[in-house]
Amino acid sequence: MSPEPTASSPSTLADTGEFALIADLTGRFPQGPHVYVGPGDDAAVLRTPRGHVVVSTDVLVEGRHFRREWAGAVEIGRKAAASNLSDVNAMGGRAHSLTVGLAAPADLPARWATDLADGIAEEAGLVGASVVGGDLTTASEVVIAITVLGTCDQAPVLRSGARPGDVVALAGRQGWAAAGLAVLTRGFRSPRALVEAYQRPQPPYDAGPAGAVGGATAMIDVSDGLLADLAHVASASGVGIDVRRDAFELAEPMRAVGAALGVDPMQFVLGGGDDHAIAATFPSGTPLPAGFTAVGQVTEPGPGGPVVTVDGAAYDGPTGWAHFQ
Amino acid sequence: MSPEPTASSPSTLADTGEFALIADLTGRFPQGPHVYVGPGDDAAVLRTPRGHVVVSTDVLVEGRHFRREWAGAVEIGRKAAASNLSDVNAMGGRAHSLTVGLAAPADLPARWATDLADGIAEEAGLVGASVVGGDLTTASEVVIAITVLGTCDQAPVLRSGARPGDVVALAGRQGWAAAGLAVLTRGFRSPRALVEAYQRPQPPYDAGPAGAVGGATAMIDVSDGLLADLAHVASASGVGIDVRRDAFELAEPMRAVGAALGVDPMQFVLGGGDDHAIAATFPSGTPLPAGFTAVGQVTEPGPGGPVVTVDGAAYDGPTGWAHFQ
Repeated sequence: MSPEPTASSPSTLADTGEFALIADLTGRFPQGPHVYVGPGDDAAVLRTPRGHVVVSTDVLVEGRHFRREWAGAVEIGRKAAASNLSDVNAMGGRAHSLTVGLAAPADLPARWATDLADGIAEEAGLVGASVVGGDLTTASEVVIAITVLGTCDQAPVLRSGARPGDVVALAGRQGWAAAGLAVLTRGFRSPRALVEAYQRPQPPYDAGPAGAVGGATAMIDVSDGLLADLAHVASASGVGIDVRRDAFELAEPMRAVGAALGVDPMQFVLGGGDDHAIAATFPSGTPLPAGFTAVGQVTEPGPGGPVVTVDGAAYDGPTGWAHFQ
Repeated sequence: MSPEPTASSPSTLADTGEFALIADLTGRFPQGPHVYVGPGDDAAVLRTPRGHVVVSTDVLVEGRHFRREWAGAVEIGRKAAASNLSDVNAMGGRAHSLTVGLAAPADLPARWATDLADGIAEEAGLVGASVVGGDLTTASEVVIAITVLGTCDQAPVLRSGARPGDVVALAGRQGWAAAGLAVLTRGFRSPRALVEAYQRPQPPYDAGPAGAVGGATAMIDVSDGLLADLAHVASASGVGIDVRRDAFELAEPMRAVGAALGVDPMQFVLGGGDDHAIAATFPSGTPLPAGFTAVGQVTEPGPGGPVVTVDGAAYDGPTGWAHFQ
């Protein structure tokens, strides 16, 4: 807990912390009767007089979520769109439309903005979605705010439905983007496969709807980091989750980077986000839908509450990240 | 036209200009068959397998769209929400949901963020809308990105339907917020009615649906400035528009501010945005819906194309504003 702020030093965002502040903010927003899923899941789901809507928003800030020297504008556009499209995917939905807000310095090359737009349009095109609106304004740094709208063909899959005994499964690559980012932050440009995985993730867009049709009890987009996101599922569902290291095959370039940087490459898998893999839980015995691989088990919550373990024990590596800290 | 950029000095956002860049960006976004209204109107309208959606996005940047010393966080939240809700209003729709992206420095007082949330929730509550999701991240300045979703009970009213002979009408206060801003920018805090009009606009949320039901042929939210926004209608509809000065009663505080600042107070009315009035056109002879007052006439386009005039002549005062310039 943070110390009680005094009048002379009011509590800041950093003091409060991202998750506590989100909880505080969210509590200030009354939810109308049309809100089927409100704040707190990958996306909100609305039942409106004219049908339902799945909606999610992401804000990406230069220097924090992307760097112009680490990826071209087309790639940044693709990543920005992917991160939003993936949130609809994780509800079991399909995106149909995006809005894009761009705030940028007036001296930004116009070409950078148009390349960004091309990248967003390319990624949206992978799922047949259109960019239908947006806003453009000046700011001292580049901020990209994307909102995605979609629909679900069946009931959306929330984070809260995992039950003890369920199988935890993963669709999509996991850890590649984190390894690519580790390479880039140290000033290297190879292995190329990893750098490209960071610059151009390939979210498994069919996995969300397939998981929903296939009986997933809970589902989430891996964006904060695998263990961090599974902890969101554990917490929302009131369960424990155990992940098995041996469920992951460490691809050769990841082992090479681990050796070169002197780190356990498994930390890219367990702590990495940015690949936009889909993690889901399925009742034991359910055939896993195409693209999913079992990586763990849902357990009873521990005596201290919901917790995520690795091979039955606490994990002491990096598990993801939070803002303001 | 801007000079052709050379390789050594690539064209920037400022060189290109807001509207040219928006046109370029928009052209890069193919519109799927579900897009009934794409980029370019107050909001987009989507026909989805599960019903239709009206959607609009605004990005507000500290120092450009608001200043923390000119309004409290609650007021900034209300204004930010109002500016979005008003876009759905201008389609003839009703908003039901908002998402809010907030990027802010880590040392921002947490109270400022929670007050902002309270202001957004208050304004949304005026139309029965809920804040259903969002994103929170750090940035070097405060950026607020809001997306609003709504529905129309009837066909949306676009900017493009004005016809020569139509009456131009306005609902809501016009010029008050601009006069309040003029006061604040000069370091004053009164007249209070004008400052409050800037800090807490009162958009006529019922006017949009009323205009749509009442037969409006075109409709727009006045946010750039009355003449600037009417120029958007003129351009989209391929018509001319003439506004009559004597249609506007100059309220006493506006006359006082004009006298004190040595400016024609009519420029607040003709050039001001921020009140979120609704401008609409109606076929001649149609009874104007409650709240609307006739302020001008739709005319044939001039020989030089669509143009907005005041009392039949070109207007040489400020007509609004564009970014990057």
